Amino acid sequence: MGFETSLAAAQQQIGSALTNALARFGAEPVAEGMRYSTGGGKRLRGYLVMESAALFGVPSDRSVQAACAIEALHAYSLVHDDLPAMDDDDLRRGQPTVHIKWDEATAILVGDALQTFAFELLAEPATHPDPAVRIALVASLARASGAQGMVLGQALDIAAESAATPLTLDEITRLQAGKTGALIEWSATAGALLGQADPAPLAAYARAIGLAFQIADDILDVTGDAATAGKRLQKDAEAGKATFVSLLGLDGARARAADLVAEAEAALAPYGRKGDDLAALAHYIVARDA
Amino acid sequence: MGFETSLAAAQQQIGSALTNALARFGAEPVAEGMRYSTGGGKRLRGYLVMESAALFGVPSDRSVQAACAIEALHAYSLVHDDLPAMDDDDLRRGQPTVHIKWDEATAILVGDALQTFAFELLAEPATHPDPAVRIALVASLARASGAQGMVLGQALDIAAESAATPLTLDEITRLQAGKTGALIEWSATAGALLGQADPAPLAAYARAIGLAFQIADDILDVTGDAATAGKRLQKDAEAGKATFVSLLGLDGARARAADLVAEAEAALAPYGRKGDDLAALAHYIVARDA
Repeated sequence: MGFETSLAAAQQQIGSALTNALARFGAEPVAEGMRYSTGGGKRLRGYLVMESAALFGVPSDRSVQAACAIEALHAYSLVHDDLPAMDDDDLRRGQPTVHIKWDEATAILVGDALQTFAFELLAEPATHPDPAVRIALVASLARASGAQGMVLGQALDIAAESAATPLTLDEITRLQAGKTGALIEWSATAGALLGQADPAPLAAYARAIGLAFQIADDILDVTGDAATAGKRLQKDAEAGKATFVSLLGLDGARARAADLVAEAEAALAPYGRKGDDLAALAHYIVARDA
Repeated sequence: MGFETSLAAAQQQIGSALTNALARFGAEPVAEGMRYSTGGGKRLRGYLVMESAALFGVPSDRSVQAACAIEALHAYSLVHDDLPAMDDDDLRRGQPTVHIKWDEATAILVGDALQTFAFELLAEPATHPDPAVRIALVASLARASGAQGMVLGQALDIAAESAATPLTLDEITRLQAGKTGALIEWSATAGALLGQADPAPLAAYARAIGLAFQIADDILDVTGDAATAGKRLQKDAEAGKATFVSLLGLDGARARAADLVAEAEAALAPYGRKGDDLAALAHYIVARDA
């Protein structure tokens, strides 16, 4: 049905499923904050889960549960990343961040509870009838998001701010592999786990688009429009942090992103035309304006 | 072998197993903070897992992995609870809290990564060879620790601080059922899950000792010695918060705790003499001085 239609359909399906799943929680500020912080966004990670699963014939009404889990996990990371002690951001997706709308204590607890919720969703039979598949998803998400994955990337990012010298290209690549890449790779390979298929081609695809995603973020930070992006821009440049743009130049960063898109497309070869939407997603990731 | 010997043995076994399991992480401040914040404590939740599992013949070298998971989960809750935006505590177990020893950003990430680590441990085959048992442990821990369990209790606790009127006994009981009770109940019933046995008697036991634990905490807050407790005391009284002591009086609170210990002992009846150490634990919980 074409990439844009299929992305829009997934966004809607994930949004509804998250609303339903979050109805189990009450009306306390923490529960409201969980709904608020999972209520928007492009759902790219959830879409990756569903598109990858579709390659192996997994219907969207089954794969949507794991898609909700990764969106909850991603939302937790944003809520904590926006805290004053971390990136100190007041605005996210054009809206006040959770600690601005409520307070810091609520934001800490909202992030904590969203992480828990991600694992709760994966553990439920709705994710997959086979407990062995569900536990593989839990194990891989824990590795991808913990102190060897996403949290390590965030810690390296914080350390970079007070480092005496800017990071090298290798160091930035390692940082992003944790901070952004690990969840993107989990999302694509989760589709293969749900389909009980070999995850290797999707892992290669995801590593390429994960890096392309971060390069595109760095390009957007320099060239983008804050109103369109819905967040503060040029903060890395202001902070004197090394980025793919500062290290490769704007043209060099664009060329590297284009190479990675080609690499991602090549990794999809085993799937033939069924991989077209994932190929289009790779292009979308580097061309987005928000 | 007697309660004190068996508690000491479990403490040592859990400490060694946590050290081994945490060796997978690097030398970054986040990894060091994970080791630091899991390095002490009475290991009561982990001991509960192992003692409960032993009722059903599960050897300690198998149950220790789930014990490590609950200790990691508990440590995450303490690290976040100590943050300036939460309870703002500088001291924990007689040592500087993580945000004092490092900084707030590191403490947020240490807590985040410890939560992830708890689920990572449960998902590993070392917890139990059957994926269905492991996924049941993941699902129940997520429910116990999330926005319907521990995090809900913490949120109610924070809301109580700015409430116009002190909480009632029912409200405090609900608050503690989340904040302290949910993890204690998980720990006891995890033993039954590991032993693939009926968790109902252990759940009743755990609900009684969980409430007794919090009442004992409130008594200790008034009568205890800060140096022995290794943390700031009387902060609830200073904050004008309702506690079991303020609502029941010191004698009333002590009588209620004693009733709960008797209730816990009665719940252990199905296990005969095999439940002696768990009965002794119930007495220990209300008699401890730290």
